[in-house]
Amino acid sequence: MSELKKARRSRVTSFDVARAAGVSQPSVSRAFTPGASITEETRNRVLTAARELGYVPNVFASSLSKKSSGMIAVISGNLNNPFYSESLQVFVENFQRTGRQVLAFSVRDQTGSDEVIMQALRYPVDGIVMTSARVTSEMVKMSEGLGIPVVMFNRRVPGTNLATVQCDNASGGAALARRMHAAGARDFLVLRGDPLGSTTNDRVGGFRRALDEMGGATVTEVEGGSNYSGAYGAMMSRFGSPSPRWPDAIFAVNDIMAIGCADALRGNFGIRIPEDIMLAGFDGIREGQREPYRLTTVRQPIESMVSETLAILDHPGLRGPSLRLIPGDLIPGNTVRARGEA
Amino acid sequence: MSELKKARRSRVTSFDVARAAGVSQPSVSRAFTPGASITEETRNRVLTAARELGYVPNVFASSLSKKSSGMIAVISGNLNNPFYSESLQVFVENFQRTGRQVLAFSVRDQTGSDEVIMQALRYPVDGIVMTSARVTSEMVKMSEGLGIPVVMFNRRVPGTNLATVQCDNASGGAALARRMHAAGARDFLVLRGDPLGSTTNDRVGGFRRALDEMGGATVTEVEGGSNYSGAYGAMMSRFGSPSPRWPDAIFAVNDIMAIGCADALRGNFGIRIPEDIMLAGFDGIREGQREPYRLTTVRQPIESMVSETLAILDHPGLRGPSLRLIPGDLIPGNTVRARGEA
Repeated sequence: MSELKKARRSRVTSFDVARAAGVSQPSVSRAFTPGASITEETRNRVLTAARELGYVPNVFASSLSKKSSGMIAVISGNLNNPFYSESLQVFVENFQRTGRQVLAFSVRDQTGSDEVIMQALRYPVDGIVMTSARVTSEMVKMSEGLGIPVVMFNRRVPGTNLATVQCDNASGGAALARRMHAAGARDFLVLRGDPLGSTTNDRVGGFRRALDEMGGATVTEVEGGSNYSGAYGAMMSRFGSPSPRWPDAIFAVNDIMAIGCADALRGNFGIRIPEDIMLAGFDGIREGQREPYRLTTVRQPIESMVSETLAILDHPGLRGPSLRLIPGDLIPGNTVRARGEA
Repeated sequence: MSELKKARRSRVTSFDVARAAGVSQPSVSRAFTPGASITEETRNRVLTAARELGYVPNVFASSLSKKSSGMIAVISGNLNNPFYSESLQVFVENFQRTGRQVLAFSVRDQTGSDEVIMQALRYPVDGIVMTSARVTSEMVKMSEGLGIPVVMFNRRVPGTNLATVQCDNASGGAALARRMHAAGARDFLVLRGDPLGSTTNDRVGGFRRALDEMGGATVTEVEGGSNYSGAYGAMMSRFGSPSPRWPDAIFAVNDIMAIGCADALRGNFGIRIPEDIMLAGFDGIREGQREPYRLTTVRQPIESMVSETLAILDHPGLRGPSLRLIPGDLIPGNTVRARGEA
């Protein structure tokens, strides 16, 4: 066994380090706590002593008594969708600022969610955030039984009692419908995502109800696979025939699909957006707001949604079954004509 | 104290669960191990018993003796750069497949790296992967002293003895220079990233050396801030004057900067790429390969780089000072003219 391993195994304590550094034990803790009040000089003495003794400042040693590890499992949907990678980034940065760490998991295709939750439960996590994935009621009961709070982020699970934080998808869908209707669109194509996902259903539901109220509109729904290539492919198969029927406007239920739509329509059919066909997305991801797209969309308030999630994890009183709906922001963009424009 | 908390605190063991479920203790372990060989029926019995007893399958209880938690800290650079978020995704998915978890950290602006490493060291991680960030030699010594291996990913740290995995940036830069030179470019603008980052310096170094060998080229370097808006802004300030000097070709040291360049040049100056100005990036990120860009670039072999990183973490014998250079793939793209084309 190497010297290093031996040192690591010998369980040097913070008291040993304190003694060697000539400081108090709390100073040792502070030296390993980012942002703690400690002079540079004291911290350096502690670090030097820790290095010499091979001290492991193991947060779990204390977590065994405190019952708090500072780790939150974040189970993300397919990170190919920039919405999920942007959300993960906000979780990592936001949690890090408050001394918490993200133990990151990913579920690419919705199956396998239970396996992943089980893997997360093997760690002493303080909570689980699911940014996607269908969760079975058995897994939910298991987490609850273990006393580990679960927060659903951007996803409702019908029939469960989980705290849920999400953008007001139905109102967002309705706002986009009204905007395109006001710009003259009557014949709509809706490009759907995951057929069982609450997000798609809420957005499309709000969109259709708003059109119904205004009247005179027709809506055709097609599956778009929730991702760029699914949306691109859906456009190719729908409009690749000799004389396709072009709609006035397309609502893609998320931005990455709207981007796939725009690329397919412009690149293969010479369609101009919004002159020939209007287009709206949902999410407000960065790349959708760049020069080639400037999507008309609803931005999900990721920062507020993450703060809300953190508040639920921190306050047991907030954890009961509850649905927090945070309004999104309509971004006018350039892909829907202004009212009255021809 | 709630019943749940009480149960959680009572330290139910896997043996208690095994007894209640009428199975062996190893079956309990398997029930909580994703992919383990166990029948659905046995797993369900274990889960039911675990739930009833409030069993916490704490991986750290065993890690205290095994000295392995299965957790790897991944400290990412600015996740606004899709290269880092794509890499993080590959780490999460790849590690998850092998029963490891990513404890995710992010360093937005290079400062603060030491703080973040210190935060990571508070957890019983099996290793630290740094996908960016400048690390001080003190921190490196500290990790080494603690017996926790550190692997640098896509980043060399001169003067340290760290295992490093990166794309062959210099050769990639040279390949792009040769390609643009062959297409007729002689007057080059290089849009640099972080002035102290090894990645930028290696790419630009390789690019310039190749041009020097071929002769007849002039190169001007400008700072582009390593990100989309920095690159966009650099184009605006350089070419916003009444009669700017346009180069034949631009080499942006990463794709997200090349995208910023393309958007600025096309959106504000009506520049056609590659007809008016050729453009190359580096990284091979997804969005750079979509319809509006189709960047000529070098793709970093993220999957191989992550596998290599995992191998180093798994085999102490590989951990010594070493630099693993993995060749990138030249993607011809549409932003550099073919050889001989006018």
